[in-house]
Amino acid sequence: MSEKITVEKKVLSENDKLAVNIRTQLKQRGIVALNFVSSPGSGKTSLLEKTLGALNNELRIGLIAGDVQTENDANRLLRAGGKMVRPIVTGGACHLDARMISRVLPELDLEKIDVLFIENVGNLVCPSSYDLGEDMKVVLLSTTEGDDKPLKYPGMFRRSSVMVINKIDLLGSSDFDMNRVKENARRINADLKIFEVSCRTGQGLGEWYDWIKHLVNDARTSATG
Amino acid sequence: MSEKITVEKKVLSENDKLAVNIRTQLKQRGIVALNFVSSPGSGKTSLLEKTLGALNNELRIGLIAGDVQTENDANRLLRAGGKMVRPIVTGGACHLDARMISRVLPELDLEKIDVLFIENVGNLVCPSSYDLGEDMKVVLLSTTEGDDKPLKYPGMFRRSSVMVINKIDLLGSSDFDMNRVKENARRINADLKIFEVSCRTGQGLGEWYDWIKHLVNDARTSATG
Repeated sequence: MSEKITVEKKVLSENDKLAVNIRTQLKQRGIVALNFVSSPGSGKTSLLEKTLGALNNELRIGLIAGDVQTENDANRLLRAGGKMVRPIVTGGACHLDARMISRVLPELDLEKIDVLFIENVGNLVCPSSYDLGEDMKVVLLSTTEGDDKPLKYPGMFRRSSVMVINKIDLLGSSDFDMNRVKENARRINADLKIFEVSCRTGQGLGEWYDWIKHLVNDARTSATG
Repeated sequence: MSEKITVEKKVLSENDKLAVNIRTQLKQRGIVALNFVSSPGSGKTSLLEKTLGALNNELRIGLIAGDVQTENDANRLLRAGGKMVRPIVTGGACHLDARMISRVLPELDLEKIDVLFIENVGNLVCPSSYDLGEDMKVVLLSTTEGDDKPLKYPGMFRRSSVMVINKIDLLGSSDFDMNRVKENARRINADLKIFEVSCRTGQGLGEWYDWIKHLVNDARTSATG
């Protein structure tokens, strides 16, 4: 068992070196990078589709869509107007890692990107351990999954900077309690920034778009300033 | 990379040996063992709560509830009337393995159990690779997660014998298509037995309970016969 842990550490430290390299490349160009993580079906692709629809004319958006199998998500993002979309099919692996990102990054023209959205594999456990060179992790949680999830999967909520609570149009169809989920999440991570949205009805998305625009502006300022 | 694969294989083969040992112990006593797998929030605990409520007087039910963190699920099963419940807190690990099961099995009186329900960690990827000595894996998929999941997470649907589609009371609140999800699932695994249920309204659960009772009866017959 101790042997297994040693190997995992070695793999992680190789991952961390690659992630530093990715982060440097992105920072030099003032690119904001967000790593979207969640359970399968929380609405990562839906949120990115909506965000493309709203911001595609204002911002130059790069997208990397990871999946265990199929390029379905990447194709959805292309159909939603994504101009720079690259799929990663992990072929069984339960998370994206920095090596996979390093491989597809040269296929994106970084000089023409303001913000890079990386959609991770749907998995609330493993992706939390892998730095992809992002500025921050954005964890999605849909109301249909239950308000206990931050306590049961604390690693992901601890390592994320932002929580997007999706499917608020379905509040009332379960015993999901908005105050309780926030309380649970902030017990794990007091600094978590929280959005409440419905990708179906559009509710709450305006605030989310504004936040993305602010992030990009701030990054531009510090890259040029 | 090849080195990592070698180590994983070694760990798996140790897991398989332990799983064979567990399976033998259970088979000798005619105990049916089901390994419940799904995304976080699909309703594994809810299905087990309902099943306890319906069958606790007829069957002697053993329960092992795995979670990354907290014993919340095990406590819910105790409150639902579970008499033989053991929690496993993996402390970060993304799946249960046969070693964890081997450790808690001696705490259950196997002579007094007809059926053993193992609730895995909520994760649609990693638990598919670990044999726990179960008779079969039961994969849950809730309608709110989307009908594309069997294609995107094929490993789990290939290695499961049964698919329980939960939250059918929420059909119509998304573009989830019942025919499409079955078609997708059967493209991955033509033999998959499928139930459609709502743990909230109770719809479809009668068929599920009947199936469990048949399984237990068959196992009794072959153990004594």
